[in-house]
Amino acid sequence: MPELWYGGDYNPEQWPPEVWAEDVALMREAGVNLVTVGVFAWSSLEPSPGRYEFGWLDEVLDLLHSNGIRVDLATPTASPPPWFSLAHPDALPVRADGVRLTHGSRDTYCACAPAYREAAAGIARALGERYAGHPALAMWHVHNEYGTVCYCSYAAAAFRRWLRERYGDLDALNAAWTTAFWGQGYGSWEEIEPPRATQYLVNPTQALDFRRFWSDELLAAYCEQRDLLRESSTLPVTTNFVFGAWVPVNHARWAREVDVVAIDHYPTVAGIGAEEQTALGADLARSWAAGKPWLLMEQAGGGLNEGKRWHTKEPGRMTRHSLAHVARGSQGVLFFQWRASRGGSEMWHSALVPHAGSETRRFREVTSLGALLPRLAEVSGSAVTAEVAILWDAESWWAMQATHLPSSEMDYLAAVQAAHRQLWTGAVDLPGPEADLSAYKLVVIPSLYLVADPEPIIGYVEGGGHVVVTCLSGIVDENAQVRLGGYPGAFRELLGIRVEEFHPVDEVLLESGRRGRAWSEHLELAGAEGVDHYASGVLAGSPAVTRNQYGAGIAWYVSTQLDDYLAEPLREAGVERPDLPEGVELVRRTGADASWTFLINHTDAAAVVPADGVELVSGQEVAESMELPAGGWAVVRSPVAPSGG
Amino acid sequence: MPELWYGGDYNPEQWPPEVWAEDVALMREAGVNLVTVGVFAWSSLEPSPGRYEFGWLDEVLDLLHSNGIRVDLATPTASPPPWFSLAHPDALPVRADGVRLTHGSRDTYCACAPAYREAAAGIARALGERYAGHPALAMWHVHNEYGTVCYCSYAAAAFRRWLRERYGDLDALNAAWTTAFWGQGYGSWEEIEPPRATQYLVNPTQALDFRRFWSDELLAAYCEQRDLLRESSTLPVTTNFVFGAWVPVNHARWAREVDVVAIDHYPTVAGIGAEEQTALGADLARSWAAGKPWLLMEQAGGGLNEGKRWHTKEPGRMTRHSLAHVARGSQGVLFFQWRASRGGSEMWHSALVPHAGSETRRFREVTSLGALLPRLAEVSGSAVTAEVAILWDAESWWAMQATHLPSSEMDYLAAVQAAHRQLWTGAVDLPGPEADLSAYKLVVIPSLYLVADPEPIIGYVEGGGHVVVTCLSGIVDENAQVRLGGYPGAFRELLGIRVEEFHPVDEVLLESGRRGRAWSEHLELAGAEGVDHYASGVLAGSPAVTRNQYGAGIAWYVSTQLDDYLAEPLREAGVERPDLPEGVELVRRTGADASWTFLINHTDAAAVVPADGVELVSGQEVAESMELPAGGWAVVRSPVAPSGG
Amino acid sequence: MPELWYGGDYNPEQWPPEVWAEDVALMREAGVNLVTVGVFAWSSLEPSPGRYEFGWLDEVLDLLHSNGIRVDLATPTASPPPWFSLAHPDALPVRADGVRLTHGSRDTYCACAPAYREAAAGIARALGERYAGHPALAMWHVHNEYGTVCYCSYAAAAFRRWLRERYGDLDALNAAWTTAFWGQGYGSWEEIEPPRATQYLVNPTQALDFRRFWSDELLAAYCEQRDLLRESSTLPVTTNFVFGAWVPVNHARWAREVDVVAIDHYPTVAGIGAEEQTALGADLARSWAAGKPWLLMEQAGGGLNEGKRWHTKEPGRMTRHSLAHVARGSQGVLFFQWRASRGGSEMWHSALVPHAGSETRRFREVTSLGALLPRLAEVSGSAVTAEVAILWDAESWWAMQATHLPSSEMDYLAAVQAAHRQLWTGAVDLPGPEADLSAYKLVVIPSLYLVADPEPIIGYVEGGGHVVVTCLSGIVDENAQVRLGGYPGAFRELLGIRVEEFHPVDEVLLESGRRGRAWSEHLELAGAEGVDHYASGVLAGSPAVTRNQYGAGIAWYVSTQLDDYLAEPLREAGVERPDLPEGVELVRRTGADASWTFLINHTDAAAVVPADGVELVSGQEVAESMELPAGGWAVVRSPVAPSGG
Repeated sequence: MPELWYGGDYNPEQWPPEVWAEDVALMREAGVNLVTVGVFAWSSLEPSPGRYEFGWLDEVLDLLHSNGIRVDLATPTASPPPWFSLAHPDALPVRADGVRLTHGSRDTYCACAPAYREAAAGIARALGERYAGHPALAMWHVHNEYGTVCYCSYAAAAFRRWLRERYGDLDALNAAWTTAFWGQGYGSWEEIEPPRATQYLVNPTQALDFRRFWSDELLAAYCEQRDLLRESSTLPVTTNFVFGAWVPVNHARWAREVDVVAIDHYPTVAGIGAEEQTALGADLARSWAAGKPWLLMEQAGGGLNEGKRWHTKEPGRMTRHSLAHVARGSQGVLFFQWRASRGGSEMWHSALVPHAGSETRRFREVTSLGALLPRLAEVSGSAVTAEVAILWDAESWWAMQATHLPSSEMDYLAAVQAAHRQLWTGAVDLPGPEADLSAYKLVVIPSLYLVADPEPIIGYVEGGGHVVVTCLSGIVDENAQVRLGGYPGAFRELLGIRVEEFHPVDEVLLESGRRGRAWSEHLELAGAEGVDHYASGVLAGSPAVTRNQYGAGIAWYVSTQLDDYLAEPLREAGVERPDLPEGVELVRRTGADASWTFLINHTDAAAVVPADGVELVSGQEVAESMELPAGGWAVVRSPVAPSGG
Repeated sequence: MPELWYGGDYNPEQWPPEVWAEDVALMREAGVNLVTVGVFAWSSLEPSPGRYEFGWLDEVLDLLHSNGIRVDLATPTASPPPWFSLAHPDALPVRADGVRLTHGSRDTYCACAPAYREAAAGIARALGERYAGHPALAMWHVHNEYGTVCYCSYAAAAFRRWLRERYGDLDALNAAWTTAFWGQGYGSWEEIEPPRATQYLVNPTQALDFRRFWSDELLAAYCEQRDLLRESSTLPVTTNFVFGAWVPVNHARWAREVDVVAIDHYPTVAGIGAEEQTALGADLARSWAAGKPWLLMEQAGGGLNEGKRWHTKEPGRMTRHSLAHVARGSQGVLFFQWRASRGGSEMWHSALVPHAGSETRRFREVTSLGALLPRLAEVSGSAVTAEVAILWDAESWWAMQATHLPSSEMDYLAAVQAAHRQLWTGAVDLPGPEADLSAYKLVVIPSLYLVADPEPIIGYVEGGGHVVVTCLSGIVDENAQVRLGGYPGAFRELLGIRVEEFHPVDEVLLESGRRGRAWSEHLELAGAEGVDHYASGVLAGSPAVTRNQYGAGIAWYVSTQLDDYLAEPLREAGVERPDLPEGVELVRRTGADASWTFLINHTDAAAVVPADGVELVSGQEVAESMELPAGGWAVVRSPVAPSGG
Repeated sequence: MPELWYGGDYNPEQWPPEVWAEDVALMREAGVNLVTVGVFAWSSLEPSPGRYEFGWLDEVLDLLHSNGIRVDLATPTASPPPWFSLAHPDALPVRADGVRLTHGSRDTYCACAPAYREAAAGIARALGERYAGHPALAMWHVHNEYGTVCYCSYAAAAFRRWLRERYGDLDALNAAWTTAFWGQGYGSWEEIEPPRATQYLVNPTQALDFRRFWSDELLAAYCEQRDLLRESSTLPVTTNFVFGAWVPVNHARWAREVDVVAIDHYPTVAGIGAEEQTALGADLARSWAAGKPWLLMEQAGGGLNEGKRWHTKEPGRMTRHSLAHVARGSQGVLFFQWRASRGGSEMWHSALVPHAGSETRRFREVTSLGALLPRLAEVSGSAVTAEVAILWDAESWWAMQATHLPSSEMDYLAAVQAAHRQLWTGAVDLPGPEADLSAYKLVVIPSLYLVADPEPIIGYVEGGGHVVVTCLSGIVDENAQVRLGGYPGAFRELLGIRVEEFHPVDEVLLESGRRGRAWSEHLELAGAEGVDHYASGVLAGSPAVTRNQYGAGIAWYVSTQLDDYLAEPLREAGVERPDLPEGVELVRRTGADASWTFLINHTDAAAVVPADGVELVSGQEVAESMELPAGGWAVVRSPVAPSGG
């Protein structure tokens, strides 16, 4: 992939052919060079079982090709056609309460249903065979946003198979699930059910395993299609990762099976949090890719979905978000969708060509961005490195969700976001808990509740690494069972502390004047020193933040939820961070002979930022610093990679 | 109908016969002249299949007749007896999530179930045949508050028949529903389902059509009974309209099929909003009736249901609400119910004879009101005219509910209420969007989201009419598909503007100092002039309220939600409104030789109001003005109709 | 039972045998003398149908016995094993909406399912036969926290049988249920259903009867097991009562069928309300026991479950709560559970041995409490008497929940709590509405909505008793039908008032300056005197609190919800209450030759309290008064019972 991709989901089947010509003309005007075609087009491609209608797609691909636009061709399996649901009602998904959903939206299938898998393989194979050789093709895009779960009997059977595989025998499962609690001991595999609607609290390990199972089951469904496509084609295959609390997909693990990590990113707030989320999403994607290319596959052209309303992106904001992704390594900028739909469930989803048409501020910004990206093309293939890491593990997220914690206010994602928020204006890596951490000066470990093996982390500190561990880390093992003897079981020695009891609270004051939220702990020092203490409540006077020398390294512990706890650890770890006004990003990509510093001012005031080199768009030389206007940005090329992150 | 009706639902089956004599004596004392009998009495009238027990009803009707009380006889089909549900479980209603409801409340039937329709026809025919000739009868009352929907397989089949009728072929349906979005293309009619529980967002046009279908299906059920009654009787037939966000009934359309428009009205707030809602309800009823008689069929004797509590109506308030209905054209004042029930689901619903009996303030006010109405009988048959109209269209309501708007705070009813609230102390008409508007000086068009044909409105302005259009009007066509090229597609030219993009917000300041709620728009002038502008947020400085000369008329546009936007349009349109203290109503009924001005002071302070003529109750002559005490009212007859509304 | 029991639920099946030895050693260290074994152990005891595994239980019981620890042996029937659910899916419970729950939690059975009853009897019989003679046994514990309801067809059939029993014929049922309302008249028993999901409001008497039915049905299930155990054993049999708004158990009635009333108590707030709830729970238990022994069977070692978080009990608080129970008559102090589980649904439920182990503040407090209780053993068997009673009736609670009251803010439990909160620092009895009240100086009757027979109360006042009745008392009869003629029908004469109409409000001011919440009433004096009046709203000037001389007694009425309305009635009734600082409890137990005054300071300031005698723990003599430190307590033995309560 020699250039930065630009474009997005293109759904010509939603429009009469006469619109296609205008589409392609506008794409050329906008500098679009890649479109994702075919997502959700199953009912257009196979309007009745086995009867394919490829003519319109042939026409579209030829048209795109003749206009120099490449295609990311999708398998349409996220939305089986109505005829499929009518023929196979047993393949419709079932909720935990037993309600079988009907078609009329999207994702109305169970990935465990044999008929579904067969039909999905059929259309994927047919697409592979027909279009593998089409010159427009750049990439394959399997399915869309894998994440749908189901509680039907197929799912139950598949879950049992997965459990047999994991545990081998029932004794191991009964032990791992603590089924002796509430008399849930299983005597045969057939007795095991998905965590369907039940009387009261569910078994947390059952719930966790169900999520792990679904990640694996969906991954198998993906691999099935990928392998079919590979039978016909050598082009890269991917699927677009969707991120959310409900998604049973361990992206770090899936990343090994895609040729290009691709993410959809939709911030959920309208304020500066949208930029923080953008930075976190891009950092996650790059970390999942672990050196492989990655790509922003979807973002919204015009809106930020706050749930109760779509906040409209201000002029320039779409561009800044796009640059933020490129800065952190994306090979391009893609959107959902090209042209706003007149009807259908997402008729109010923003697009590159809005309902008002191309004579709009929105489309003008699209065109400007399309003109800009080629000027940044030289960054393609360069790397982003970080001195600081935040550990990320989907299993900790799921395990925290699966149990009834002493406080409902403890949330894994929020803890990671709180850590990342202290670092977001630069690049941060988010490796998994078993990664090699030796390259990092500091590793933050926010609420890493489930730790299967603490050794990689302990060894990192022993060897001189610095870590900051926050509350609810190291609590349970891989079976979500508490590590006994005092919290946090996995890290007691590392941290030089022992926690006897949790004290969930609304808020608690610290001696430093900071306020901890939701959580506090009755903590005893066992080698560590107390560096901040509780100053209110029943724990007043006892340690709240500790620091422990361990081997050649340092291990900090933060026993409550704080907004700002990294300043001192960063200093001590020797992490140098540029002095930036709040809301200004500085991220560097590094190539063989040059580095490129992306400077993005997300504020509504001008900002002076450090910069040395040549600004790519203006061609101006800058030395030491430059001023970015409100909402402005710059990409500065330097001949050698400067130090610092 | 030569007089004003007074009375309400009378349910003698809830009481032993010895209470009936007391009932009738109290009715005479209270001046009751019409009672609705038989609503929900199915299990008393047909205690087992085909075995009718008419004896008690004969007795009740004879008793009423011998006391000079007329009867509005209801078919009891809103509550099938338990034996019916046991025999026909397939006729019980099914929720969108597939849960089949059971009996034990009311309305536990599916109107599409053949067994239900047959049984309903049976009891309606039997009642018609037996009582058509009874001298007590004044009117027929079919069913009760039509509005129950169902998602069962009968409903699905009926929905498919309705869709075939509407669309003719599947291509048309697929196009209208934008089924290409998310791959929902239908290949056969059998594939189509009601909008049952599904995975994610439903198809908005499917949801809208399902509501349209239910309006038509329920109307057919009504007409079936009406026609059966007409086989035996020439008396007027009606059904009581219930109003609410959940009701799939297009009352404007149904009004053509009833001989008397009848409404139930239960305000949902306790403050002055109850009076505003009363005015709106009465204006709607009169507008639906379009010149035919209409009648307040139900209101609560003592309470305003705020949801979490029943607010008890203050002394005099029941009377003022009753007069407000008569002022706006009601042929009388009826209540649910006569005597408060000792048990059952609505044992705490207020009544004319409360649990405490007739020696109560409540019943004394009932008696006073009963004595008052005959003194106002001369207004019967007179007309209410309005110079201002607000367009009302159930389809816009449904279409807005059916889609996922950019802001969840945009609500059709709230927009209509906001418009009506600026006018409620006088009479306002609420015609449909295709009505002849030429009689009005000003037409307000609040959030008329769905516009099938804008020509009647455009033609009205072209010919000199004045309109005020508010945000989200004219957005989609009859298929709920966006009219492209810039909002509001139906009215761009009329308004001389073009809206590129919506900007949902919490609140936005205008240059006039007014605050807009929930919504703002990136609006460009295309002929119109900006008369107010945004003063905060990203749109600061751009037009918020516009005015356009179009043909011989004027078209205003209000691009955000404002509380007060009609003062200037009213003035320019030459609408003269009396100068009234806030909370004081002035509504005029006009007959051949006289007019009657209803003056109602809903406040707790005395108010001086304009009046000329003879006050009907006191007999006093008034000139120019009179004082109404706190909570007081007057009805003033003038020999000729004064000008003004 | 000669001593105070100390211990709690012990679940050795959750741990490998090597932990058992440590358990017993720690129990001895902690002074544990009673453990409840076997709750939820069904799948461990009968891992496949009919195959019993008693070996581990034999071993555990022998081990406990050899260490002098007695056993409360439970039948495990609250959690059928997975094999049972697989074999008998028809015995899984069904929700009101028809969803059949699955296993995976606990209580996943329908007590009406024959297969369940048979299986439960089987395991209970087997346990009785095997362990009746075991020397460790002290007590039998049937099941756990009866309260699970179901809406399946077995439940429906059993409900019908119960209704036939109650009403004899359908006419009586139709009359009692007011089925004439909304046409619900039943023509055959088969037509009657549980109050399953229906279209709109349910029939309130049907809902009430369904709850009564479940209380009786569950009681029959309990008695079945109890009688089987009695075939083998003469030891006392009990079950642990759980208290909550969802529980369909009339504990006052069940108390007659248990040998020892046993309660589980989990306060739901973290502040002083936890102590108030503790006092109310203990007072209820003692009142249900009505002279028989009672026992705190479960409390949490370390936490107060506020719903969104578990608040950790401060040092000393567990001890104070324990003493509060003993003060009010508990024969001991038991907990759930002994050792915190590593996994399972309640892995975060606190325990006596926490995850951190025995070297913890928590376990040290457990050990201290265990050392303390034997020093208080002499109080065992002594009585607690009260001069003031608050009437308690589950049927009033259920009837209020079953109907749609004019205000959703009226809550029976809240009314009882508001009354008890004014008295909680001393002992209060909570007899049923038909109890002999003659021993009390004052009886408070908060919101006793359903009164089947008012005569015991009226007779009590006639004979000289004093009552304080609060709003919504005496409203309906045993069929939940309104007593007509003016509220409160059952007590109009007694109170010398007549209420015409309710006026639900947010808040209302009284002339005394107090503020009434949620409710007010249009009340007329009919013999009573007004002692406080409304000072705001539409009722300003009319009576709010009244006092009526009736026979030789006094009957007060409080027509709104007040926090403080008992001071004057207590004074007039001659109830002498010690002068205590807020938050300090004083409760007296009385034996044949001595009395023991429990003084508990729940505040964080020292408090001087009245005391005369010898403090049991310190052995110090105290005269007139003593000082309790913050959080401190004392138990003072006096040779003769002092007067006062």
